[in-house]
Amino acid sequence: MRVAIIGYGGVGRALVQLVSSKKDYLHKEGLQIQVNYIIGRDGGVYNKEGIDLEDFMEFGAKQRDIIKYPKGGDQGVSFNKMLQNRDVDFVIELTPTNKETGEPGMNHIKRSLEQGINVVTANKGPILLAYKELKNIAIKNHVQLGIGCTTGGALPSINGGSIDLAGAEILSIEGVLNGTTNFIINEMENKGITYLEALENAKELGIAETNSRLDVEGFDTATKLLILTNILMDEEKSLQDIIIQGITKITSEEVKNCLDEGNKYKLLGKTVKENGKIRMTVKLEKLDPTHPLYGVDGKNKGVRYTSDVLGDLTIIGGASGVIPAAASVFRDLININRGYRFCR
Amino acid sequence: MRVAIIGYGGVGRALVQLVSSKKDYLHKEGLQIQVNYIIGRDGGVYNKEGIDLEDFMEFGAKQRDIIKYPKGGDQGVSFNKMLQNRDVDFVIELTPTNKETGEPGMNHIKRSLEQGINVVTANKGPILLAYKELKNIAIKNHVQLGIGCTTGGALPSINGGSIDLAGAEILSIEGVLNGTTNFIINEMENKGITYLEALENAKELGIAETNSRLDVEGFDTATKLLILTNILMDEEKSLQDIIIQGITKITSEEVKNCLDEGNKYKLLGKTVKENGKIRMTVKLEKLDPTHPLYGVDGKNKGVRYTSDVLGDLTIIGGASGVIPAAASVFRDLININRGYRFCR
Repeated sequence: MRVAIIGYGGVGRALVQLVSSKKDYLHKEGLQIQVNYIIGRDGGVYNKEGIDLEDFMEFGAKQRDIIKYPKGGDQGVSFNKMLQNRDVDFVIELTPTNKETGEPGMNHIKRSLEQGINVVTANKGPILLAYKELKNIAIKNHVQLGIGCTTGGALPSINGGSIDLAGAEILSIEGVLNGTTNFIINEMENKGITYLEALENAKELGIAETNSRLDVEGFDTATKLLILTNILMDEEKSLQDIIIQGITKITSEEVKNCLDEGNKYKLLGKTVKENGKIRMTVKLEKLDPTHPLYGVDGKNKGVRYTSDVLGDLTIIGGASGVIPAAASVFRDLININRGYRFCR
Repeated sequence: MRVAIIGYGGVGRALVQLVSSKKDYLHKEGLQIQVNYIIGRDGGVYNKEGIDLEDFMEFGAKQRDIIKYPKGGDQGVSFNKMLQNRDVDFVIELTPTNKETGEPGMNHIKRSLEQGINVVTANKGPILLAYKELKNIAIKNHVQLGIGCTTGGALPSINGGSIDLAGAEILSIEGVLNGTTNFIINEMENKGITYLEALENAKELGIAETNSRLDVEGFDTATKLLILTNILMDEEKSLQDIIIQGITKITSEEVKNCLDEGNKYKLLGKTVKENGKIRMTVKLEKLDPTHPLYGVDGKNKGVRYTSDVLGDLTIIGGASGVIPAAASVFRDLININRGYRFCR
C-alpha cells in the first residue's frame, strides 16, 4: 500500500511513528505500508521507493521544517505534483479543519478520489459540508473514503453505527462527544469550582484550546452529531437543524445540586427519530446512574444507539490525544485493506 | 446471495422473519437474500428459486413440522443433498450447541467451507473447539466464516475487538457475558432475596433454562471469554486454562453489603496479558461505579477492552433473545457482503 500523508501536524507525526512501530503487526496483517509522500504546509518530502520513516523521525526530532530533510528526494513536493506522479494508493488527509469552506481538505479529498485514490481523513470540515458528494465520487471511482476519526477520534462511533449495527435501523443517537466540555464539567464536580475556573484548568492542561468557543458552546458536539446522523440515518441535515446550547452558563450550584440528586450533567448530543421526524439537540442533560453514558468521565467519550432489531448499543472510549487520533486513521486503513466497503 | 438455513429453532425462525421483514433495507443495501433451503432436525424444505418466506411463515404458524410444508419442493431435503446440489453461497449454521464434540455443527461448517461456501454460525461448540482449524479451511477455500453471534449475541464483542480495535494490540478483556447470571444478581440486589429464590424467578421468566448449570457455574461466560481471547489475542487456550467460579454460593448478605459499599457484584470473565503471560478468570467481582461495566444490568451484556494505541473501549448491549441473536447472524451476513474479511 503506497501512501501519501497530506498535512503534517501532531496527528501526522503520531501516524508516522505508529506505522513505523507497528511493523510486526502489519506483517501479521499481511499489509505493507510504504509512505511515499509526507507533505506539510510549505511542501513535502518524497521518495518513490518509500521514505525511511525511522531516519525521517530522527531528523524531525531536531528540525521541524520537513522540507529541509536531506534525503527528501523531490524536496518541497506539492499535492499537485503527487497527483501527477500517480504513485500512491491511499491519501491520508490531515490538514487543519475549516468548517466554512472545508479547504484545503475538500480539494485534496475530491481530487484524490476522482483520480482513483482511496482517502482516509481526520478532517471534519469536508465531511461536515459534503460527505454525500464525496462518498458518491468515491463510489463512482471504485475507491473508499474512511472518516472514522472525524466523530470522536478513537471512539468507534461510525463503525459502531454502521458495522456493529449492520442490518438494524438506528432509532436514536445520544453522544458525549466532546472531551473538553466533559473534562470541564468533571472538574466542577470534583473540585466544586466555577465554570470559568474549570475552563482555565482545562486550558492550562492543554485540554481546551485558547479559543475554546467551538467546544464550550456546543458546536464541536453538534458537528460530530451531524456527521453521525447524516451517515448512519441517511439524512441530509445541517447545523441549522440542531438546537445547540453550550455549557457556558452552568453554575457550581447547579452542578452540586445535580450531584446531590445522584445524577451527573453531560453535554449530550441527541438525535431522535419519532414518527419519521428527526429531532436534534445539543444541550446539558442530567443523566441518572442507570443511563449507560452516566460514567463517561474525564477526557472519555461515549455514544449510545437504540435500534430496531439489535437493541441498544453503547460504546465508551476514545480518550483524546494525537496517538489515539492517529490510531483511528490507521484503523480505517486496515479495515479498508481487509475489504470493508464504507462507500457502496 | 443464495442461502441455506441449517437448524430451525427459535433463532432460525426469527431469522426467516427478519430476512422477510427487512426487504427495504436489503434493497437499499443492494443485497438480495434468496433462501433456498430451510433444514430442521428431520429434514427440510427446498426451492432452488428461493422459498417464499411469507408463505412458509404462514404455514409455520399453524404447523411446526416443516417437512409437511406442501410447497417444499424436494421435501425432507438433507444437508448432504444440499451440498450435492451446489446451489448456495452461504450456509447459516444454527443447530444446537454441543461443547464436547461440536456436532453436528462441526461437520456442517467444515464441509460447507471445504466446498467453498461461506458460513455464518451461532453455534458455540465448533468455534470453541476448533476455530483456528475452521478459519484456516475458510482461508484455503477463499470463503468467510462469521461467528459474531457466539460471544454474546447482539453484543458486538468480536467486531469490537477486531474491527473497532483494528491496528491496536488488545492488552486485556473483561466481560459481563452471561445474561442469566447478571439477571439473578440483579434480582438479589433489587429484591433482597436469596440466590435460590432469584434463580427460581429467572426460570419462571424463561431467562434461565431448566438446566442452568452451565450459566450459574460460569461455564457459559468461560466459553465466550475463551473464544474472544483465542480470536482477538491470537491464543490457543482451552477451558482448562481458566480459573472458573460461578455465582451459586453468593448470599443475600454479601449482595447487600456490596451494595451498601456503593459497589455491585458482576460475574466477570477476565483475560489479562502481563509480561507476555495470559491469566484468565471467571469469578464474582465487586465493581465500583467508576468501572465502565458497573451499569450493565438486567439481561444486558458488556465487554471492555484495553489496548495499546486506541485506549480503552467498552461496549454495552446485546440483550438476550432470539430476535437480537438472529439479527447478529444477519449482521455478519451483511458485513461479509460488504467485503469485510473476518478470515484472512
